Amino acid sequence: MKQFTQVADLPNLEVAIQEAITVKKAPFIHQHLGKNKTLGLVFMNPSLRTRLSSQVAGQNLGMSVIVLNITKEGWQLETQDGVVMNGDKAEHVKDAIGVIGQYVDILGVRSFPKLENAQEDYSEKILLDFVKYAGVPVVSLESATRHPLQSFADVLTIEEHKKIAKPKVVLTWSPHPRALPQAVPNSFAEWMNAMDYEFVITHPKGYELHEAFTQNAKIEYDRQKAFEGADFIYAKNWSSFHDYGKILSQDATWTVDQKSMQWTNQAHFMHCLPVRRNVIVTDDVIDSPQSLILEQAKNRTISMQTILKRMLENL
Amino acid sequence: MKQFTQVADLPNLEVAIQEAITVKKAPFIHQHLGKNKTLGLVFMNPSLRTRLSSQVAGQNLGMSVIVLNITKEGWQLETQDGVVMNGDKAEHVKDAIGVIGQYVDILGVRSFPKLENAQEDYSEKILLDFVKYAGVPVVSLESATRHPLQSFADVLTIEEHKKIAKPKVVLTWSPHPRALPQAVPNSFAEWMNAMDYEFVITHPKGYELHEAFTQNAKIEYDRQKAFEGADFIYAKNWSSFHDYGKILSQDATWTVDQKSMQWTNQAHFMHCLPVRRNVIVTDDVIDSPQSLILEQAKNRTISMQTILKRMLENL
Amino acid sequence: MKQFTQVADLPNLEVAIQEAITVKKAPFIHQHLGKNKTLGLVFMNPSLRTRLSSQVAGQNLGMSVIVLNITKEGWQLETQDGVVMNGDKAEHVKDAIGVIGQYVDILGVRSFPKLENAQEDYSEKILLDFVKYAGVPVVSLESATRHPLQSFADVLTIEEHKKIAKPKVVLTWSPHPRALPQAVPNSFAEWMNAMDYEFVITHPKGYELHEAFTQNAKIEYDRQKAFEGADFIYAKNWSSFHDYGKILSQDATWTVDQKSMQWTNQAHFMHCLPVRRNVIVTDDVIDSPQSLILEQAKNRTISMQTILKRMLENL
Repeated sequence: MKQFTQVADLPNLEVAIQEAITVKKAPFIHQHLGKNKTLGLVFMNPSLRTRLSSQVAGQNLGMSVIVLNITKEGWQLETQDGVVMNGDKAEHVKDAIGVIGQYVDILGVRSFPKLENAQEDYSEKILLDFVKYAGVPVVSLESATRHPLQSFADVLTIEEHKKIAKPKVVLTWSPHPRALPQAVPNSFAEWMNAMDYEFVITHPKGYELHEAFTQNAKIEYDRQKAFEGADFIYAKNWSSFHDYGKILSQDATWTVDQKSMQWTNQAHFMHCLPVRRNVIVTDDVIDSPQSLILEQAKNRTISMQTILKRMLENL
Repeated sequence: MKQFTQVADLPNLEVAIQEAITVKKAPFIHQHLGKNKTLGLVFMNPSLRTRLSSQVAGQNLGMSVIVLNITKEGWQLETQDGVVMNGDKAEHVKDAIGVIGQYVDILGVRSFPKLENAQEDYSEKILLDFVKYAGVPVVSLESATRHPLQSFADVLTIEEHKKIAKPKVVLTWSPHPRALPQAVPNSFAEWMNAMDYEFVITHPKGYELHEAFTQNAKIEYDRQKAFEGADFIYAKNWSSFHDYGKILSQDATWTVDQKSMQWTNQAHFMHCLPVRRNVIVTDDVIDSPQSLILEQAKNRTISMQTILKRMLENL
Repeated sequence: MKQFTQVADLPNLEVAIQEAITVKKAPFIHQHLGKNKTLGLVFMNPSLRTRLSSQVAGQNLGMSVIVLNITKEGWQLETQDGVVMNGDKAEHVKDAIGVIGQYVDILGVRSFPKLENAQEDYSEKILLDFVKYAGVPVVSLESATRHPLQSFADVLTIEEHKKIAKPKVVLTWSPHPRALPQAVPNSFAEWMNAMDYEFVITHPKGYELHEAFTQNAKIEYDRQKAFEGADFIYAKNWSSFHDYGKILSQDATWTVDQKSMQWTNQAHFMHCLPVRRNVIVTDDVIDSPQSLILEQAKNRTISMQTILKRMLENL
């Protein structure tokens, strides 16, 4: 396994889920794989869950873990080729990545979108530069358009809690005061489409995600219809893709609350965190026994550890 | 042992001191306890001694250690319940702590007081939120009102250097250009009161500490009388508790110098560091053979390691 | 081995190079040396290569590694003795270093020059304070006037790639938009002089390095003459020593390009990185098969590991 940037990098998702369940049951039995191996984690944007879960995943596998926090301000990288670098950028991205690759055996990288230019963000240039220049396997720790470790953890959480073979899973847009990336909903849609679930997306008009991710998923603008019979409600805000990076609505009736949860089939509530309480979801829903937010967080270690294990097996 | 936030969390201080002495003699013999265990260290304020000594203590016990620096600016946490989070705070403290608790086996946290509102600081809300929501044992790395790992190290240092069973220990206020917390003197008083020492506090009027910490300790406003016959002089600045957070005096005659040390019984000099030389204490005193500042720093590892060992034994 | 701050700290450079080659062949066979030992890395200035390679080197030897980033703004240290510390500096450098030395077994430190006062920078006060107060062996991770781990890696790289016993090595000044330290060229000159190479330095007039470092090296102002017959071209910018810290030239004809490389004996190209492409060197040269930049970066781990191994053997 040379890279993990999207669900398509797993040749057989069902097998990967079974492997993750095995990893969760016995997290320390593969420490021979990581002996004398180093995991490098490069964060171009802040991280809490991803950093901690990735450090733990690497350490569970016996790896040394090195974290490199690179704020875009602190360490300006030139990304264009052929430029005369006499400005404020002290290093070219290809050299920085090539060097980091000399010191680690597997490299994780996080790089958020700027939300200014869809074409630029959706080109995934920074992530692809890491894949191109690192010389070692690369794991996405959330890129401009996808968050595959989160989606893998989400799928695992659904598999652990579903009561029927083919549950109804609903991705619902929720309001938020700031413009957020589409990475989590894009990725979630992509992974849901790879599973044999009934998958429905609901959001106000104008919030349609890129079709490359939603594919044949049902889009239901009537929120109540979407929620009816749902086994899992996955709430998330995102900014508009078509009116790129814009906030088109802050409609508080889209907040997930007890009333809307009553439309469902006693659905579990899911969110990737961090979450703004009483904006995305009301306290009574997120604090209810149906809430899976901590289980999702816990499974972030498992999804990362499963990917790292595969990469280590192929080093 | 589920939490370590004050001396009262140690059921028998004498036994704990003996355990610490054992740990210091053979620091690496308990590494089986920490195998496959992770220590998380959350710093809401900067740290040098506490971070390094805690990392070493965890590693001596075979643990993996993960440090999370959270400046109050960088990661705004909502601390009030029931709030509609549509402002600048992106995560509720209960969710952040709950998530961190998913990834670690023991959690340390540092959070300083704001020194604006005594009631708010002395409620220890942030520390108690960690205890409440972490789901794993919590160690205070200095909270608004106490610094128990420092006090434990201080007691250990006194035990190692005392020449009589019941030494005279004097806590003396010293001047400082900035307003400092009461955590170190509060905690030191609390621990001294738990020992069978002759304990005296001296400071200018107006600098009385909260009685919950000083209890029956003797307060002697005449500095020379306080110093007479002392075996240990523990210098520290703090801001006023009663005129909360204010600097009432910068009186340079309170600086510990050779003249005042001559009043004592060839006392040892102690300070928790960092120290402003020639403001808190003169160079000749802090650099004298009687100074124990580096021994105190060294014992910071031992106090933390003793607490972690107990927690690991009860996981 | 109590300190590594310059080539003179290695009693026999030839033996050290052979030891480095051995370390590179079998990097994990000395892990017993570092068991229960801690490496502390103090960075007063930012670092990518040095931090990563030092962490890996320590971990390869079985050590725990603790990184301490100290921006000069964040942690103001008093460096003068006898001062009344009632200003903005909260800790004296001798206390901070003494404390850090309580927690680690070997201490690395990086501290750049201010480029304002040659005498102050060239006194190496901060580095020497670390050596004086740490109480444990100290490794320079680049100081005001030298970067010995880089030079050691560079020498190793030349030894690995030279085709004749006594190659011609040319250190060439290259233009740069900002004023840079003389540490890398100083150090490189010092190490080249310790080897039995033909060593030539070329730069515009006014860029002469301190003679303590260049010693008897040939200085050739005619760049083409310098390059003729060269086996290795080592490019680097530095600010003027004699007109201290000043940029005297940004002459783009000094950029290393294909034309100038054709004057050489099919020389290898070297640079310590980070490098400004098409300012220091053109893309076609740095991306050519003759470029050794990634090999140099890789050898940073080896030079550090060789030094740490020697220090561990003598603890």
